[in-house]
Amino acid sequence: MGKKLTKRAEDYSKWYNELVVKADLAENSGVRGCMVIKPYGFAIWEKMQAELDRMFKETGHQNAYFPLFVPKSLFEAEEKNAEGFAKECAVVTHYRLKNDPDKEGKLMVDPEAKLEEELVVRPTSEAIIWNTYKNWIQSYRDLPILINQWANVVRWEMRTRLFLRTAEFLWQEGHTAHATKDEAIAETVQMNDIYAEFVENFMAVPVIKGVKSESERFAGAEDTYCIEALMQDGKALQAGTSHFLGQNFAKAFDVKFANKEGKQDYVWATSWGVSTRLMGALIMTHSDDNGLILPPNLAPIQVAIVPIYKGEEQLDAISERIAPLVKELRAKGISVKYDNRDTHKPGFKFNEYELKGVPVRLAIGQRDMENGTFEVARRDTLEKETVAEADVVAKIEELLEDIQKNMYKKALDYRESHITEVNDFEEFKEVLEAKGGFLSAHWDGTAETEEKIKELTKATIRCIPMDAKEEAGQCVFSGKPSNRRVLFAKAY
Amino acid sequence: MGKKLTKRAEDYSKWYNELVVKADLAENSGVRGCMVIKPYGFAIWEKMQAELDRMFKETGHQNAYFPLFVPKSLFEAEEKNAEGFAKECAVVTHYRLKNDPDKEGKLMVDPEAKLEEELVVRPTSEAIIWNTYKNWIQSYRDLPILINQWANVVRWEMRTRLFLRTAEFLWQEGHTAHATKDEAIAETVQMNDIYAEFVENFMAVPVIKGVKSESERFAGAEDTYCIEALMQDGKALQAGTSHFLGQNFAKAFDVKFANKEGKQDYVWATSWGVSTRLMGALIMTHSDDNGLILPPNLAPIQVAIVPIYKGEEQLDAISERIAPLVKELRAKGISVKYDNRDTHKPGFKFNEYELKGVPVRLAIGQRDMENGTFEVARRDTLEKETVAEADVVAKIEELLEDIQKNMYKKALDYRESHITEVNDFEEFKEVLEAKGGFLSAHWDGTAETEEKIKELTKATIRCIPMDAKEEAGQCVFSGKPSNRRVLFAKAY
Ligand SMILES: [Zn+2]
Ligand SMILES: [Zn+2]
Repeated sequence: MGKKLTKRAEDYSKWYNELVVKADLAENSGVRGCMVIKPYGFAIWEKMQAELDRMFKETGHQNAYFPLFVPKSLFEAEEKNAEGFAKECAVVTHYRLKNDPDKEGKLMVDPEAKLEEELVVRPTSEAIIWNTYKNWIQSYRDLPILINQWANVVRWEMRTRLFLRTAEFLWQEGHTAHATKDEAIAETVQMNDIYAEFVENFMAVPVIKGVKSESERFAGAEDTYCIEALMQDGKALQAGTSHFLGQNFAKAFDVKFANKEGKQDYVWATSWGVSTRLMGALIMTHSDDNGLILPPNLAPIQVAIVPIYKGEEQLDAISERIAPLVKELRAKGISVKYDNRDTHKPGFKFNEYELKGVPVRLAIGQRDMENGTFEVARRDTLEKETVAEADVVAKIEELLEDIQKNMYKKALDYRESHITEVNDFEEFKEVLEAKGGFLSAHWDGTAETEEKIKELTKATIRCIPMDAKEEAGQCVFSGKPSNRRVLFAKAY
Repeated sequence: MGKKLTKRAEDYSKWYNELVVKADLAENSGVRGCMVIKPYGFAIWEKMQAELDRMFKETGHQNAYFPLFVPKSLFEAEEKNAEGFAKECAVVTHYRLKNDPDKEGKLMVDPEAKLEEELVVRPTSEAIIWNTYKNWIQSYRDLPILINQWANVVRWEMRTRLFLRTAEFLWQEGHTAHATKDEAIAETVQMNDIYAEFVENFMAVPVIKGVKSESERFAGAEDTYCIEALMQDGKALQAGTSHFLGQNFAKAFDVKFANKEGKQDYVWATSWGVSTRLMGALIMTHSDDNGLILPPNLAPIQVAIVPIYKGEEQLDAISERIAPLVKELRAKGISVKYDNRDTHKPGFKFNEYELKGVPVRLAIGQRDMENGTFEVARRDTLEKETVAEADVVAKIEELLEDIQKNMYKKALDYRESHITEVNDFEEFKEVLEAKGGFLSAHWDGTAETEEKIKELTKATIRCIPMDAKEEAGQCVFSGKPSNRRVLFAKAY
């Protein structure tokens, strides 16, 4: 454990980095930009995966697995996609090492084992997958193809941060093929909705659903739908994206099908993904200066029980009292840890569960033993109360529900109070600096204006919200006419 | 579907390759030696993963994730391990592509983006993990560390075969750290036992537990425990391995801990893994000339129901009769597919479920509708019978249990009848060629003899069985004294 976390108000970025490491979520590895996801962090990711996987399967998707490597000739087939990822990709050029004749015990790349064609470590799998779909699709009867893959991908980012931006990360990528444009667009929207549902109901993070501007689109997409969340420092975080790829990949890989009328047509595509970046969103939305705050729906440990005792006899008595409670909670599907380690003091354990964001903590000491009570503490508000043994299971169930709801509400209140309508560029800059959050502003629809605003303020268009209403106005920067507001923010 | 499978007796290897592709398990990709695992194949792998993951967690292991890349300097730290994998590893040397000035629309490796230190794509993760454990371990209180990782690894094999040997494959790798030698050995044995339990009870594949000879050990291990299975063509297949690594990695990465007495000591290590190779074992142990035969415990579809009808009215009547049955089976946790596709004839569907190894198939036609019966077919024996509606659920439950047991028994009978004790080298060669299977023979314990036998016959020592009894004898090749028999076989 050791010393306290840096406070958010002091240095938000430092607070985040410390928290990720101290709460045993992840750490930097011996490989530049790559992280080690530690067991506690990975347990949260596994819960996310399980839930998303269930939602994907319920909507008819199946999992499959495609190669890690993309031969250069396939990688470059879809031009925009290639252009978008070429500058940050890891390239395998050789397939063997040999003993270095000049350095005893050292190895070197064997120049005789040079690959004829270089292999790109997948930054995303459209190319390798569409090269495969080509052989799977002949007729409309072969469509739709609804496949998801859980995988690692590599993007050689220069500045990395644990979970938020790492050279290697874990994600899922859905890749679907459809007979019609409408069906593909409906799939794109459906998956963005599923992401929103998951992030709001499980992560307790409110999101805004929208569409990206052209400059922020996925390389190779016709349209990118997204969900945008707001962190406690007023910066936005893109939590998931769903792309309508049109016929771009079908054309690049020559994937045609015979439609019901027997005519040949190119296949319509979508792809969609969320990654371990979600961990960053989860941490930054909810945590406080004491550590992590985890929503009960994703907490690996939902209830921690700490005995307060002197000597083995007292511990035994407490353990006996605890046993049926643990059993009852587990039977209800609640994950419980009874922490009877004799190597650590109760105070240490309290700090540890606080740091690790365990939603509910029970403590039981001698007075509780006498009175037949427990001390019950909730992590989100840090409130404590004394609860009679007979009521404690119901209390825990109520708390787990309440914490989940309260965390969402708190994040939503913050988000709602940090969407500011601004109508001129001075106001734009002032609000961005003084308050942060989303700025709802008119935009003339041009990439030039977008770029200029980014240069001057570092704010980008996060999305054009799905529910943006028609409203005549003037671009906050150029003064040119606009018919709806879009959301700007500084972003992770 | 298309034409029939090649028969096993004609060409076993061709039969296997065709079956993997036709049953929609996997196929070769556009990347040399890498496969695409198709949804049906991946669904089986997911069932394997779920079960193994449960077994690992029940024995106190947690999942985590370590980087895909191993910097060359870490890779070479444990000399034997490095030597064992250097000749077949994919090496990343650059982190960027750029436009090829000579070829419009093509990319090339950017020579200015050469990595200072090459990165090896992990063939196994001991190096990167022990470099991490170094920072996690100070005292005996930090031990044991019991971690597993589900990941992809790359070994640049020259000759590849779907599932059996691929350049990239999926696996799990457990990496544990212990304070004592005894504890590490106990862990090694425990995990080998868990593998045996899984493979026998879920895959219905009998295995022999044993220890590898020194030449067949994992590079960097002190001892390799393994489970060996026997395929229908008389060749053995190593289904899982569990390594006692001694203090080799602790020494290579300088991982010491303070023991209870406060003395510094090197940490003891194990690693253990099974991979998508298990899919190959599953397919080759059970399948027949009609296709796959899947054990009910791993079948993605346990029961397929095919309606036989003319016209929509008949189909509707059947669907109505089927609905409560499907519901009842699902409530019992049985996975059912009611195949009411009107694009395919019943005969086509029967063939498809046979090819895909679905354990139980129901058919219902007009006579069944009149008589209140179903035709129930079991995949393993191809037997059919007519069952009254009232008895069908019980019949299905009975069949699923029976098929699981029968498949194991059949494979065990085959295996038992293909372990042959041989006492001289002529007999060794004759039995190996005429009958195949395991040859139980005395061996003088030297690597020279082992190597010679391999050169002359292609047979290798699969293992020294755990239950091998002391028995004085003479080496089948050298005639030198031996005190126990070992198992030889040709192997995948
Ligand atoms: Zn504020
Ligand atoms: Zn035989």
